[in-house]
Amino acid sequence: MKFKCNQQTLSKALNIVSKAVTNKTTLPIMKGIMLKVDENGILTMSASDFYISVEKSLKVEDFLPGSIVVMSKLFGDIVRKLPNDDVYFELVDNYVVIKCQNTEFKILGLSSDEFPVLNKVENNNEVIKLDRQLLIDMIKRTAFAASIDEAKGVITGVLLEMGPEKFNMVALDGYRMAISRERVDINEEKKIVIPAKIIGELNKILLETADEEYDVNMIITEKKVVFIMDNTKVILNLLEGEFIKYQDILPKDNTTTVVLNKNDLAKCIERASLLAKEGKNNLIKFSITENNILITSKSEEGNVKENLSVYKEGNDLEIGFNSKYILDVLKVIDDEDIKMEFKQSINPCIVKPIEGNVYEYLVLPVRITTN
Amino acid sequence: MKFKCNQQTLSKALNIVSKAVTNKTTLPIMKGIMLKVDENGILTMSASDFYISVEKSLKVEDFLPGSIVVMSKLFGDIVRKLPNDDVYFELVDNYVVIKCQNTEFKILGLSSDEFPVLNKVENNNEVIKLDRQLLIDMIKRTAFAASIDEAKGVITGVLLEMGPEKFNMVALDGYRMAISRERVDINEEKKIVIPAKIIGELNKILLETADEEYDVNMIITEKKVVFIMDNTKVILNLLEGEFIKYQDILPKDNTTTVVLNKNDLAKCIERASLLAKEGKNNLIKFSITENNILITSKSEEGNVKENLSVYKEGNDLEIGFNSKYILDVLKVIDDEDIKMEFKQSINPCIVKPIEGNVYEYLVLPVRITTN
Repeated sequence: MKFKCNQQTLSKALNIVSKAVTNKTTLPIMKGIMLKVDENGILTMSASDFYISVEKSLKVEDFLPGSIVVMSKLFGDIVRKLPNDDVYFELVDNYVVIKCQNTEFKILGLSSDEFPVLNKVENNNEVIKLDRQLLIDMIKRTAFAASIDEAKGVITGVLLEMGPEKFNMVALDGYRMAISRERVDINEEKKIVIPAKIIGELNKILLETADEEYDVNMIITEKKVVFIMDNTKVILNLLEGEFIKYQDILPKDNTTTVVLNKNDLAKCIERASLLAKEGKNNLIKFSITENNILITSKSEEGNVKENLSVYKEGNDLEIGFNSKYILDVLKVIDDEDIKMEFKQSINPCIVKPIEGNVYEYLVLPVRITTN
Repeated sequence: MKFKCNQQTLSKALNIVSKAVTNKTTLPIMKGIMLKVDENGILTMSASDFYISVEKSLKVEDFLPGSIVVMSKLFGDIVRKLPNDDVYFELVDNYVVIKCQNTEFKILGLSSDEFPVLNKVENNNEVIKLDRQLLIDMIKRTAFAASIDEAKGVITGVLLEMGPEKFNMVALDGYRMAISRERVDINEEKKIVIPAKIIGELNKILLETADEEYDVNMIITEKKVVFIMDNTKVILNLLEGEFIKYQDILPKDNTTTVVLNKNDLAKCIERASLLAKEGKNNLIKFSITENNILITSKSEEGNVKENLSVYKEGNDLEIGFNSKYILDVLKVIDDEDIKMEFKQSINPCIVKPIEGNVYEYLVLPVRITTN
């Protein structure tokens, strides 16, 4: 095996492929990236752990076909620190010789025979075309709400619900739930659940490849979902199990509606959180009256009162929240103004755009003692 | 006590004073900052741990004299998160009420009676005027070389050696030594040692106050050194004990001199370090021949060769180093080209500017087995 490639191009590609390399393994080969050059001068780099596999291809020059596995961290560090110039790679015995300007590295490789082979994707499955930015935004707005408790099974994942004119993502953790709804025309009704952690890795890859690759195709197989871009392929393992019937949780008869500026609310809650300590569920209290929300919190160190001008319809209300759950959603919404809907102090609150329901975020209240 | 002050101004000042607040204490008052308003409307903020005390003053409005101690972290967080506008402070019972726009905080204060009082500086000591940038640069070029082993006593500090036309800083740790020499006219011969860690805090304060305060005056008392700027006073405790006679360590009969590009050398060593592992003292080898240095290193993962063009005078030489000790000095030198002087493979190497000796960095070699 040998090939020539530009340093920057290779370094960017390695950065993407390395997202599938785990460090939590004692098997050396699993810390590796496979480099494979085919007869057409296409270098394919691939890495895989149990949950995610990534494969990226690029055209190389002065090549001889062959394959080898190199340690991901060392190889990535070397390529990243080389000058931005042509880099020459050659397999000599079991060593990869790397030459660039006045530098020559020689590093030990491992046989690619033991490297896990990525599954072939069956050709008869529906190819779902997705807009890259839409996918990025939907993941950003839902994945953070999934449970981080590994024992919680299917709710550590993000539900993807598809069908004609329907593409929804849903995540929840027992305290809050995020629903993102978009229109994508998909023939077959399908439901899959992707672990939130690895859909997060997919999102990093989508963001990092945004300047070079545009279309994203999704193919769903029995136990996996594959995302295919121009030169990058990401395969994610699905979570098994029935997702919660989330539609039943959504309240339908809210009686108080508030419209407010998102950034102003975020600043008020950030300040109020300074006196809402961990041990007390970060409790902040909303007192909603005509055109005003008084946000308060207290601890043994003191208390804080914030007044926020809002547009209100419906009943006055006192309700308590874990400030973290409200701040989390404000970070992922791009809208300047948002709507909050309430019923009573024991019912969940809904955060959503002023118009429509492309996004809904539900958060359970914390019981407050009125004193 | 009450006063009015701009949020940004106060936030910047608190950021500086808080550098003297320790979190390693169980005494609540030691985690505090004292706020004191005098009859002239000067707010003085001060904090102190055993090693460093910082005091900063600023003019406030709508004031009533008085004093209180507030928890540094909470108070700093509150002020930082307030809008950039006038902030009103008032002491009500033992609480500090903080008002800004629609926000009102009320936080518990502690009596200032138990707060440590900063020592008055005796007036009969010599006031040494120092250029701020010179002080910043000298600290940057020496403090990193001090020992970080607390058991090593006086060499965990930076020596300041003063006299007529003499102002030197020296730090060493048994493996390397950094000497910075400048001309400052100081009447009295003096030697003091400042703990490297707290001279580092002083440097942060010098950098952060650079835009508002220019002159730095230094006053040395028996056990302390005081740095006085326009509105900021920093008091550092000195280390006791006799500093090593560092002049005796400097070699005088080097036989090989090399002039090279600093950035090129840094890049070569960074790459070579990838295969010089911790357990082996980060060993890299220099083979110095006519107009070239071959830098090599190896581990069980592979090896690397770097060729660097240099200007050389004197004998050829093979010598080994801990790459970290060379990289450390290259980070603090601003010169484009530098000079390295060698004698034999068992003698220390000197890194210095091409001309003069305002800076000298000595590093001991690592023994290499020539095979």
